[in-house]
Amino acid sequence: MPRLLVIGTGLIGGSFALAMRRAGAFARIDGYDANASTAEQAAELGLIDRPVTDLPQAVAAADAVLIAVPTSAIADNVRRVAAAVVRPTTTVFDAGSVKGSVVANLRGRGGIPAWFVPSHPMAGSERRGPDAADTHLFRDRHVILTPQPETDTAATARVRGWWAAAGARVFETSAEIHDDMVALTSHLPHLIAYAYMGWVDAPHSGDPRAFAGPGLQDFTRIAASDAAMWRQILTDNRAAVLAQFDGWSATFARLGTLLREGRFDELERWLASARAARARLSDPPDA
Amino acid sequence: MPRLLVIGTGLIGGSFALAMRRAGAFARIDGYDANASTAEQAAELGLIDRPVTDLPQAVAAADAVLIAVPTSAIADNVRRVAAAVVRPTTTVFDAGSVKGSVVANLRGRGGIPAWFVPSHPMAGSERRGPDAADTHLFRDRHVILTPQPETDTAATARVRGWWAAAGARVFETSAEIHDDMVALTSHLPHLIAYAYMGWVDAPHSGDPRAFAGPGLQDFTRIAASDAAMWRQILTDNRAAVLAQFDGWSATFARLGTLLREGRFDELERWLASARAARARLSDPPDA
Repeated sequence: MPRLLVIGTGLIGGSFALAMRRAGAFARIDGYDANASTAEQAAELGLIDRPVTDLPQAVAAADAVLIAVPTSAIADNVRRVAAAVVRPTTTVFDAGSVKGSVVANLRGRGGIPAWFVPSHPMAGSERRGPDAADTHLFRDRHVILTPQPETDTAATARVRGWWAAAGARVFETSAEIHDDMVALTSHLPHLIAYAYMGWVDAPHSGDPRAFAGPGLQDFTRIAASDAAMWRQILTDNRAAVLAQFDGWSATFARLGTLLREGRFDELERWLASARAARARLSDPPDA
Repeated sequence: MPRLLVIGTGLIGGSFALAMRRAGAFARIDGYDANASTAEQAAELGLIDRPVTDLPQAVAAADAVLIAVPTSAIADNVRRVAAAVVRPTTTVFDAGSVKGSVVANLRGRGGIPAWFVPSHPMAGSERRGPDAADTHLFRDRHVILTPQPETDTAATARVRGWWAAAGARVFETSAEIHDDMVALTSHLPHLIAYAYMGWVDAPHSGDPRAFAGPGLQDFTRIAASDAAMWRQILTDNRAAVLAQFDGWSATFARLGTLLREGRFDELERWLASARAARARLSDPPDA
């Protein structure tokens, strides 16, 4: 009778719990949240079977533990869990957006437990909390695992299986490549979208809202995300984000130069090439 | 028995025809397209009643003429229509993304007819052609009218009524403010999205597709738009786009500096302010 414990019963933890319930992967799903009322709300919404307040006891009874908390709190939670793990097959994984800082933190203070599998679902929403949870949040999404040299391969295989049961496609890479690539595919786009909304909000000749269509709404949707969470992600992955920032800025400046200098044929070739890249974005990744 | 003639039976012209059919605003809807097979396809799809090939005859019979063609072809089409208008109440309007260049072109060659109302629906899609037409494309969208000193106010009122019948909210402003504001709300976001896809397509440490989530998909959706059309729009509105380019670039650089210098509290205040602006983006515009 395998048991799942979800630490952090918000959007990600709650959605994973729902997906596991749908998949019938666990006989019981407990939920713990630093904010007890969040776990109670998750239980009322049917995301988890039971809100728990005694974390060590819940960990001792769990076969799987998902740590779905802000990136800055992941390492501390792994250490709290480590103090309570008593069964050899208990497997612990996270859902954090940044990997390098967590791995470095663990390696520097107590080591990386063999049963801990760093993982990151490329799914989310600008909404937060248990009432934003969605059974299908991970369906057809990608989940990146970054197992470390210390990580037990059997634990990695179990985590892979649970994410697959949630409907996701699972990939493995290093923490370094993960952080570099999510800076590209997620963190810098968020920074651009926030910056764009800041610019839209500056004084202009007219009211931008009269001129806003669905294109702008989609382009800036990720700027509706929680500011404190994104401050943390950008802070934790600063070096990789700044490297992407510089690379993208140079590319963007070149495109501006084509427009400024009236090199319209080159501009159109550039747009056509970017459009083709956009069309390939949904293709299956290289293995 | 009012008749509508749609010149250019693609996404915009076809969607307007469908919306007018639904509203029962016209007894007959004719369609003309420089590519005759596009008009025939529009008729087969039921967007228009009849594809026409004799443009002067169709104009002479029309009460309303929508010119839904690429921005670079609008002024020429207005002049073609002008040569065929025979009824005093015939009203002609366009759907172009840029206004200043069209108005200047007309004023310089033949003048701006009193029956021509420059208009621009803030709606669209990355898809094109008659089979992308959608009855509800304009519902709850904004349409900007930029009537000129030459424009008959009764013609403006009629065009306002038709767009309202399509479900849109109608605003009036100058061609200059229109072009400045759409550079902000549409043209520069397209340039950024194209540039971002170009950067994603450059060599990186991993395959971006493995790390792409719905955030990146939404952020870059407008980069799936037709490259030739966007080359034209960026060309026609170059000065306004470059002005927005420079303003936004300075804003974005400042945000980068906050991250680079580790000014995380300021960064978070910036993100929170941008997030609040995003939440207000759907509010009704100031009158």
